[in-house]
This record gives sequence, C-alpha cells and structure tokens, in this order.
Amino acid sequence: MGSIVDELEAILAPGQVDTGEVPLRRYAVDQAPVIDFQLPLAVVFPESVADVQSVVKACADSGVAIVPRGAGTGVSGGAHATANCIILSLERMDRILALSPDDETAVVEPGVVNAVLNEAAAEHGLMYAPDPASFRSSTIGGNVATNAGGLRCAKYGVTRDSVLALDVVLADGSLIHTGHQTFKGVAGYDLTGLFVGSEGTLGIVVGITVRLKYLPREVHTVAAFYPDFRLAAAGVLAVGRARVQPAIMELLDGGTLAQLDDIHGSDLTARGKSLLLVQTDGFGAAAEAEVVRRVLRDGGATVTTEASAEAERLVELRRHSRGTEVDDEYRVGEDVAVPRSRLVDYVAALEAMAAGQQVHLKVVAHAGDGNLHPTFWIDRQGPDVEPGAMDRLQVALDESITAALAMGGTITGEHGIGQYKLRWLGQEQPEAVRELQRRIKDLFDPAGVLNPGKAI
Amino acid sequence: MGSIVDELEAILAPGQVDTGEVPLRRYAVDQAPVIDFQLPLAVVFPESVADVQSVVKACADSGVAIVPRGAGTGVSGGAHATANCIILSLERMDRILALSPDDETAVVEPGVVNAVLNEAAAEHGLMYAPDPASFRSSTIGGNVATNAGGLRCAKYGVTRDSVLALDVVLADGSLIHTGHQTFKGVAGYDLTGLFVGSEGTLGIVVGITVRLKYLPREVHTVAAFYPDFRLAAAGVLAVGRARVQPAIMELLDGGTLAQLDDIHGSDLTARGKSLLLVQTDGFGAAAEAEVVRRVLRDGGATVTTEASAEAERLVELRRHSRGTEVDDEYRVGEDVAVPRSRLVDYVAALEAMAAGQQVHLKVVAHAGDGNLHPTFWIDRQGPDVEPGAMDRLQVALDESITAALAMGGTITGEHGIGQYKLRWLGQEQPEAVRELQRRIKDLFDPAGVLNPGKAI
Ligand SMILES: Cc1cc2nc3c(=O)[nH]c(=O)nc-3n(C[C@H](O)[C@H](O)[C@H](O)COP(=O)(O)OP(=O)(O)OC[C@H]3O[C@@H](n4cnc5c(N)ncnc54)[C@H](O)[C@@H]3O)c2cc1C
Ligand SMILES: Cc1cc2nc3c(=O)[nH]c(=O)nc-3n(C[C@H](O)[C@H](O)[C@H](O)COP(=O)(O)OP(=O)(O)OC[C@H]3O[C@@H](n4cnc5c(N)ncnc54)[C@H](O)[C@@H]3O)c2cc1C
Repeated sequence: MGSIVDELEAILAPGQVDTGEVPLRRYAVDQAPVIDFQLPLAVVFPESVADVQSVVKACADSGVAIVPRGAGTGVSGGAHATANCIILSLERMDRILALSPDDETAVVEPGVVNAVLNEAAAEHGLMYAPDPASFRSSTIGGNVATNAGGLRCAKYGVTRDSVLALDVVLADGSLIHTGHQTFKGVAGYDLTGLFVGSEGTLGIVVGITVRLKYLPREVHTVAAFYPDFRLAAAGVLAVGRARVQPAIMELLDGGTLAQLDDIHGSDLTARGKSLLLVQTDGFGAAAEAEVVRRVLRDGGATVTTEASAEAERLVELRRHSRGTEVDDEYRVGEDVAVPRSRLVDYVAALEAMAAGQQVHLKVVAHAGDGNLHPTFWIDRQGPDVEPGAMDRLQVALDESITAALAMGGTITGEHGIGQYKLRWLGQEQPEAVRELQRRIKDLFDPAGVLNPGKAI
Repeated sequence: MGSIVDELEAILAPGQVDTGEVPLRRYAVDQAPVIDFQLPLAVVFPESVADVQSVVKACADSGVAIVPRGAGTGVSGGAHATANCIILSLERMDRILALSPDDETAVVEPGVVNAVLNEAAAEHGLMYAPDPASFRSSTIGGNVATNAGGLRCAKYGVTRDSVLALDVVLADGSLIHTGHQTFKGVAGYDLTGLFVGSEGTLGIVVGITVRLKYLPREVHTVAAFYPDFRLAAAGVLAVGRARVQPAIMELLDGGTLAQLDDIHGSDLTARGKSLLLVQTDGFGAAAEAEVVRRVLRDGGATVTTEASAEAERLVELRRHSRGTEVDDEYRVGEDVAVPRSRLVDYVAALEAMAAGQQVHLKVVAHAGDGNLHPTFWIDRQGPDVEPGAMDRLQVALDESITAALAMGGTITGEHGIGQYKLRWLGQEQPEAVRELQRRIKDLFDPAGVLNPGKAI
C-alpha cells in the first residue's frame, strides 16, 4: 500500500492534491492562536461531492484524519491541522446551484463565499441574513460548521435559523440529505441542527439549502458616542426597554475606536470614549430610528443628527474593526456572551481585569445579542515580552471566561470551541453533557477521523 | 416485586397516580385518529423535577413505557398510549419560574400553557412568539416536543427558534441542562435542538428557557376575499414578490369558510370562495399593509377597506377554525408543507384529489410558510359509511402526501410524525437517514422506554 498522498493523487485529478511546503504551511492554520502546530500531509481540493466521498473513504481506510476547511477565517482553531491529517479545502466547490426568488431559498455548495451569495440574492430583493464580519471571505460551509453569527443576528437569527437542509458526507464516505426544502418541517429528529455548529466533527457539509429573507429597502443608522463604555452598554438595554428591535446594535469601546482611527485616519476618539451603532431596517426603520435616537440621547449619548450616510460609514468601519490582525499567543480575541441585563456589569468587570493584570483590552460587541469580543494583548519589544506578561495575559483570559459564566453566560457566542477554547469547555458544561456529546461523536465517527480534537 | 402502579404510588404523594377508568380513557389519546387504542396502566402527575426522575427510574427498572403528555392537543398521536405504558402528564408542573424583562427571557416548567406565558410576557411588552392555533390550551413542553409552529411563524420563527435551553430527564432518570441563557451560544453540539421536536422519545422536558420577542404595538390586518382558492394562493406569492414580510398570512378555502359560518353565524361564504388573511405588525405595519392591499387587489381580491377591527375578528375566527372537531378514522387533518412557489399547484392538486375520490375537503394554511392543513372526510349515516368510502379517503390522504413530496415538500410542517404519520415517513426519508435516527434513539434510550413507536 502506498501513502495516503499517493492514493489521493490516484483518485483525484492533477492539481487537486497539493503537498508544496508553502501551501502546507498556509493551510495548516486558521486565524486562531496556534497551540500545537502540525503540518498536514496534503491539502486536498475536491471539486465535487463524489470527490469528497472518495477522499473521506480513502482517509477512513488509512486512519488519516480529515480537517475540513472553508476560507480559514475561523478564530478558534477549528481548521488547524492536527497530527497525521489532510486539509480538505472546500473552496473549489463554490457554485450557487439554485436560487429561487419565489421559494425564497437557495442551494449552494459549501465553498460559496457569504458575500457572493448575498450579491446573487440582492438581485431579487433578497438576502442571506447571517452576516459574520468576515462575510467578504468566509464560506457558507464554514458558517454552517460554526453556526456563525454576525451583525444583524439579533433581528434575523444566526446561521442555524437560515439553514433548511444539508447534504453531508459521513465518516464512512456515504452521503445523506437532511432537513427539508420548505420553511418548516418536523419529520424526525433535527439532524440538520445537529450538523450545524459541529465544526466538521460529525460530517463534511457538501450542500446547503438556505432560506433567504427580504432585503430591507430602508435602512437607518444611528451613531451614538458616549463619554464612557458602561454608559454605552446601558444604552443597549435602554433600546431593548423601548421594545425596538434593531437589525444591528454594535458596541465599540475606546480601544477599538483608537485602533480604527489608527488604521483609517478617522477621528472617532475625539468624539467619544465609546460608540454604539444602531441600525434599524424595514418599513418602520425611520420611526424606529427616531425612538432609538431619543432613548440614547436620554441615556447621555451624543447622537448623530446628520443623515445616515456618515453613520453607515461607521458600520462599514466596524465590519472591519478586526483589521488584518491575526490572533497569536500575545493577542487573544474572546467571544463570550452574557444575558443582556449583565452587559454593563460584564463590561465593568472586563475593564477591572485588564487594569488588574496590566494587559491591553479592546472590546467590540454584537451587543443586541449580549455577544462580546474582548481582545486582550500584551506589548512586545521585538521577540520579547515583559517578564510575567504572558502569565498575566492568561489570567485575564481565564478571568474573563469565569466572569461570563458566573453571570449566566457562555464561553462562545458564535466562534465555536475549535481547538483553542477546549480548555474552558469543562467550566461551562458538566461531564454528563460532555459525555453525551462524545457518544454522539462516536456514533457518527467511530474511528475518529473527522476533525479530531475539536469542538467537544 | 409489586406492580409499577404500587411502586409509583409508594414513590409519589396521594393523588399523583390515577388509575380510574375515566381518566385512563381520557388520557389514553390525544386529538389524532386512533389506530391502535391502548389503555395506560396509570396516569401519573409529577409535581417536580424530582418526581419525574423517580417515575422515569421506576419505569425504566420495570420496563414500563412512558408516554409524556402536555395538554393532549397533539394531532399526530404522539401522546397516544402504547402497550404497557403509563401516561406522564406534565400538567401540574405549570409554574413560570422566571421572567426577565431586561434579558428578554423566561424560564418555565413544561406544563405552562402557551397563552399563560404570553399573558405574563405581555405585561412587559414582550411575547413568546410561537403561537400554535392551540395556544389557549397547549403547553410549552408539548410545543417544544413537537417543535410547534403557528400563525406568526413566517416572521418570528417556530418553537426551535425561541428555545435557548432545556432541562431534560433522560431515560435513566438523570437530569441534564442543555443550551445557554444567552441569545447566542455555540459551545458543543446543539443538544437543545435535538430534543426540540423529538416528541418525547429522547427525554422528558422538565424546564424550558425561552427567548421573548417584542410585542408589536401596531398591528394591521387585511382580509382579502377571492372568487377561487387558487387565486388566493397566488396572492401569497404576490405578497412575497413585493418583499413584505407579514406576521401572519393565513389562507382559508371555501370549505373552511362554510364551516366557520356554520359555527359562528358569520357570512363569509357570501363574500368569497376563499379568504387570505394578512397581518403586518411593528413600526412599519401601516405601510406594509398598504402594499399588501395594493398587491392583493391587483391579484383579483376584494380587500377590506374598513378599519382592521373586522379583519382582526376574522383572524380570531381562523384561530378557532379547527373548531372542536377531533380527527378520527372518518376525518383526517393533514399537515404538509410545500415550497412557496408550489402553493397554487398544490392547492389545485388537492381539489382534484378530493373530486377524484369523492371525499370532502377543506383547507387552512399557514400560507406564509407554505404549510397547509387539508382535512379530508367522508359522510356518515349513523355508524355507517358508503361502501368504498373508507378506501377512497385513504387514497386521497396518500395522494396528498405523494403530491406534496413530489413538489419538494414534507409530510409534516409542524404537527410531528407521532404515531399516525409513521406510515408515510419512509416516503420522505431514505433508510440511511432513518437508521441514523434510530441509532440516536438507541443512544439516548437503549431500553426503549421513552414514548416507543413514535416520531421516527
Ligand atoms: C475579520 C473576522 C471577522 C469575523 N467575524 C465573525 C462574526 O461576526 N461572526 C462569527 O460568527 N464569526 C466571525 N468570524 C469567525 C469566522 O469568520 C467564522 O467562524 C466563519 O464561519 C468561518 O468560515 P470559514 O469559511 O472561514 O471556515 P473555516 O475557518 O475554514 O472553518 C471553520 C470550522 O468549520 C469547519 N468547516 C469548514 N467548512 C466545512 C464544511 N464544508 N464541512 C464541515 N466542516 C467545515 C472547519 O473544520 C472548522 O472547524 C470572523 C473572523 C474574522 C477573521
Ligand atoms: C385546535 C388545534 C389547533 C392546533 N394548531 C396548531 C398549530 O397552529 N401549530 C402547531 O404546530 N400545532 C397545532 N396543533 C397541534 C398541537 O396543539 C401541538 O402539537 C402542540 O404543540 C401540542 O402541545 P400539547 O401540550 O397539547 O402536547 P401533547 O399533545 O400532550 O403532546 C405532544 C407530543 O409531545 C410529547 N410531550 C408533551 N410534553 C412533553 C414533555 N414535557 N417532554 C417530552 N415530551 C413531551 C408527547 O409525548 C407527544 O408526543 C393544534 C391542535 C389543535 C387541537
């Protein structure tokens, strides 16, 4: 028997199996901190469902692990290579197979980029609602595998809520179809939901049927600058108390504003220490924005009175607030969520942690969902850091997790457990719940070839 | 060893185990046709999570089946008694344990009636969105177990979309908590989603954390009468093409209108052969209703111009359009769903089937979801039916299922498979998918004590 690489090369066409040093390194990691760097045996580019099935069968027979990969924009290490693995890149399976404006559904291959689907849908007055800030590059397959959230999820739901049906290649190479083409369907167990968010550990998603929503014709955007971060967090609650459901409600702290100014030459820090961006949409957008403006002003904000154009530019900036930074061991982005009533407390706790551990902090939040992305980092002088800084960074990270859980929160609102957050999963889920998941994993993948060591 | 009844009486307090002939008969069935009548050994009324755990343990030890039951409004026979079973009625566990207006969440026991939760939420400007037409009597536990839909689900989602976390007693009597208190959370596999819609076959739901939505302050209702059913179905598509998302879009055919007139003394049949009821809500309700009126008028409808009051009365009538009728072998209500673009074709096909088989037909539909409830029935003269009528009824039922599937539909949009629809499940799901579900069932309930012979 030859090596798995020989075998895959025999099964697939030329150019579908790459073992070059540069691609191996590039595809070895996603955007998360790397805690156990491994080089894959090969990067494999299936172009059809049949290709995926052949590759999975070959790997299963040889006991080689399969790490599926969309665009590699994940920030939890779900697509990091593991020992003795191939990377299965779905990027070439990027066709929109069907888009039915009357059914308000689309069927796509996993490698279709979120923004590409949205462009196609927009031609029909439709949109694919889940919009991770990575929408210009991340794939629908990756979004499904992580149950991605995004900016407009408080109103329109997360990926799970837009997925109707899936085609999945199982660990033995067989293909199943789950779910329904209709908006509703309750025949049998919700296998579709089980695959969504399973981070490639239960099967390879090779086809996705999604429900599309209506592209709002009217959008109003309100930018509210605050003298401090906690007041801004309180603004989120105030909008909720007014019982107005914005499409977008993003919270940016002073650190984030400073970074945006640095990158884009804007003057945000001059205008406030924190920014709350609220977007309303639909037929009631203007009336809703009016209520939002009033409520935020009453809460101490300086609210944009100008036309929405400038505020919309700020939403664009926010979508890129992660910049091009990649997390590493010196800089870690979190993804906790807390019940909305605890937003202010949690934000206060974060500030205290950063001060206590003398680490840098910046926070952006999908605040309508109570989903916060604090990033902690430490300074580097060349390759060095201050003695003890690494430990203090870890303490701050652990504290931010513990505090979120103590407030009834979760360690991951939308990014997934991947590899990096496994260390905290036991704090959120008791052993019985984890064991149940391990048994489900065993049922789907008894040999453990699908993305081992991730998600659960 | 005594009987299970003795054992349960020893474990529970007086009055919690009922073996009277009348209650046994009453709790033996839900509202679905009965194909295999069985009398339970007892009806058991737990009053706490600990009670449920004890009962499940005792039954598991004795190999006695457990049929969980909410209000028994199910129409698929999911709560029908099976051989050698007890009925576990959750109706006494009916407390709202928490309702947080700022978090916009509530925690309830399974026996809380949908309408009761909605009344409590309304005091805070909130609502529990999924509203099956049975909302005045059905329980949140039952809604969760069936993943119930309802009238306003096209806009607000089905039960699954409002459930954040569950407390579940497993087949061995152990208790687990799944999900998260936050709006978003992706730690591990979606066990919550797996339990939702599992019809009591994977575990007993003893606690539910739900997300609440904002009670719309403004609601506009449009009633559109049509000269025929197909034109009305086309109206649903026209509203969609205008990219307006109503909260409610209910379609009633002539048979349903006649029945409503019978029961309520209304004059609906005089006004049209079919009725499309559209409700818009929220800040944009008036503007949306305006578009809806125009679009429907253009499609041949006579649209109410009067104030919404009368149209709202019609929505109330619709909510009760099932009347008090209980399905039986002579009268069977279906629950298919088709992709929206096929609504008109499907409605035409239904009319042809009824004519072909000479059976009566009436149809109501949650049309925004493409979810139709055709009811087929045959006349009875006393205890007798015309020779061959029973067969023709069965043929019409089978044809309606086959046609829905052929159009890309499902055999159950919201009522569940229960017991009655098992005969069609194999037409919708191939053996590999069914086998996967059986293995999941085995994993959760190896001895098969939880609602055997249902759902999958
Ligand atoms: C700038 C930036 C902004 C971001 N903003 C958001 C945000 O707002 N919301 C949010 O939720 N996330 C966000 N993310 C995280 C990331 O973009 C999402 O997790 C996204 O869904 C990943 O998609 P991908 O195609 O890059 O998948 P990858 O990173 O390639 O993979 C992600 C996981 O899915 C698995 N996988 C990928 N494709 C498949 C498949 N076809 N079948 C089975 N498993 C598969 C992988 O093994 C891995 O475990 C952001 C990331 C960046 C870098
Ligand atoms: C007039 C009328 C209108 C209806 N309209 C709608 C509608 O619009 N949309 C819709 O979806 N349905 C509708 N239904 C069907 C029915 O009301 C729903 O299925 C409802 O969710 C059942 O709730 P229940 O409390 O009556 O549950 P039951 O009928 O008692 O039980 C339903 C199923 O859930 C299981 N179960 C119940 N409680 C639990 C628990 N705590 N843990 C585990 N399993 C449990 C049972 O074993 C059974 O399988 C309607 C029914 C009627 C009679």
